[in-house]
Amino acid sequence: MHEFHLINKYFSKLSKKNKGSFNLNDDVFFDKSKKLVISIDTYVEGIHFIDFKKPDLVIKKIIRSSISDIICKGVKPKYYFISGSGNELSFTSSNLIKISKSLKQEQNKYNIFLCGGDTVYSNKLSFTVTSVGFSKKIISRNNAKLNDDIYVTGNLGDSFTGLNVLKRKININSSLAKYFTNKYYLPNLNLELSDKLLSIANTSIDISDGLIADLEKLINNQSFSYKLFIKNVPISKNLKKLLIQKKLDKISFISRGDDYQILFTANSSKSRIIKRIAKSKGIKISKIGKICSNLQKSQIIDEKGNKIAIKTKGYSHRF
Amino acid sequence: MHEFHLINKYFSKLSKKNKGSFNLNDDVFFDKSKKLVISIDTYVEGIHFIDFKKPDLVIKKIIRSSISDIICKGVKPKYYFISGSGNELSFTSSNLIKISKSLKQEQNKYNIFLCGGDTVYSNKLSFTVTSVGFSKKIISRNNAKLNDDIYVTGNLGDSFTGLNVLKRKININSSLAKYFTNKYYLPNLNLELSDKLLSIANTSIDISDGLIADLEKLINNQSFSYKLFIKNVPISKNLKKLLIQKKLDKISFISRGDDYQILFTANSSKSRIIKRIAKSKGIKISKIGKICSNLQKSQIIDEKGNKIAIKTKGYSHRF
Repeated sequence: MHEFHLINKYFSKLSKKNKGSFNLNDDVFFDKSKKLVISIDTYVEGIHFIDFKKPDLVIKKIIRSSISDIICKGVKPKYYFISGSGNELSFTSSNLIKISKSLKQEQNKYNIFLCGGDTVYSNKLSFTVTSVGFSKKIISRNNAKLNDDIYVTGNLGDSFTGLNVLKRKININSSLAKYFTNKYYLPNLNLELSDKLLSIANTSIDISDGLIADLEKLINNQSFSYKLFIKNVPISKNLKKLLIQKKLDKISFISRGDDYQILFTANSSKSRIIKRIAKSKGIKISKIGKICSNLQKSQIIDEKGNKIAIKTKGYSHRF
Repeated sequence: MHEFHLINKYFSKLSKKNKGSFNLNDDVFFDKSKKLVISIDTYVEGIHFIDFKKPDLVIKKIIRSSISDIICKGVKPKYYFISGSGNELSFTSSNLIKISKSLKQEQNKYNIFLCGGDTVYSNKLSFTVTSVGFSKKIISRNNAKLNDDIYVTGNLGDSFTGLNVLKRKININSSLAKYFTNKYYLPNLNLELSDKLLSIANTSIDISDGLIADLEKLINNQSFSYKLFIKNVPISKNLKKLLIQKKLDKISFISRGDDYQILFTANSSKSRIIKRIAKSKGIKISKIGKICSNLQKSQIIDEKGNKIAIKTKGYSHRF
């Protein structure tokens, strides 16, 4: 069962919909009266990260994944909490030093600080990160408008490639392997775009589950369809080379998630200002599709201009 | 290694001490500028709850344990988040219905609501609960004054007895068994005392690890000792009977935790007003000891007036 179905079915009625807060159908909670934004995510070894052989990188990744939820809504994270469940094998002194150092580096990079948390004993390693920010408004899900352009930041697919390198499913030279695994562990968040987003985007989400899965999530309560041009979906030069060399499909790499880039829609009148922001901030922002009427079905157009059907929409938490 | 040593050693330096927030040496985080109070706790099956055979009771207990952290600081909880890690055996439809129903009942009882959370797949069942409240001030730890009286709400030891009944370490008749297991699963929180606490208590904590362990935690950064009179520590009639019948020591039952009663200190001039509040709110509040100078060692006085040394201070998260 998909995570969001499960949440909707049993728990939506427990939240207050009319008290200036969003219901549970979003990745963040927003208390408008208190200008408070909170996001909570749990990461389990073997599910959300492969293992804990590189605690420094795992910790950086989970912090970035967590604050990404807030950043993509146009809000700067201010502080965070981390709760670790693990045993003496995971929380050795050496690992704790690495964890602490990584957290310090992320704090400096994103101007956030640790507020607390909890450490509990468990044979299964997991972390829950709570990120907190403050803002008068945020960009919510399900707020796309008809004919909005669909945009994405950065490049997609590098992270999934890195995951496959780590799982030894892709065999490449060590410098390329390092490039991709770094992209997997250290997603590049666009913090500097965050406050600009509020004035340009109608709706937004970060790509954690995969481009298509997250696009569908983004508008899942709206009566819209979308048109997506695979040729416009940005990938790195390294991934381009790899796809040609190994004869792999672009779509199966860009739609598998863990990218932590921002997917948003904006009115076509914002096109020029978005280009200007991208240039001034040095951020890659690509127009990759359009929000369409529900009279037509959603369409994914491949690089040759053909409509395609894809099976793998991305990653969903299993139940 | 004890949880708080671990936190102090590696992570304290990551929090900001001078930004109107507490450091990590407290059970809650307080952002004074935003009047925001946050508490986060993780509960692991086999560690913090025995099993998930009674999901309705387990869920109620973890919600109460979580909001207890905020209530004991003089703050009313406003909303909460719950993240569950588990598999299809824990999160069956039948269990989800029970969880949802329990949450609804707790929401009505404590006037809180669900704001979100996360569900992830894991073979080990655990929950992380984040509780949020708002207040201009809170009662912090390590703020006892010399000669303060030490108080505790409610009765201690019933919960630990219930745990032993569940573990089949104590054999009693079924109606008594039900009484104690109910006390274990459903601690009685003193929400109505919460706002009064701010005007009477100098420092406070909820008893989760055990009376003595939590008392030591409460003043662990202060140069004080304490004097504790076991005869004044309140226990229920049922526990009193059981102790006599089974020839068990009172101290080994009142110092084992899971009570979720409020332990606080107050100036002796507050004695009359505390009695008045207790009477008007119908809450049992007992004076059980005194904060003393560090020139003498902490003393625990047994029911016959003898000084005693105890080994088991309570429960600490293992590492």
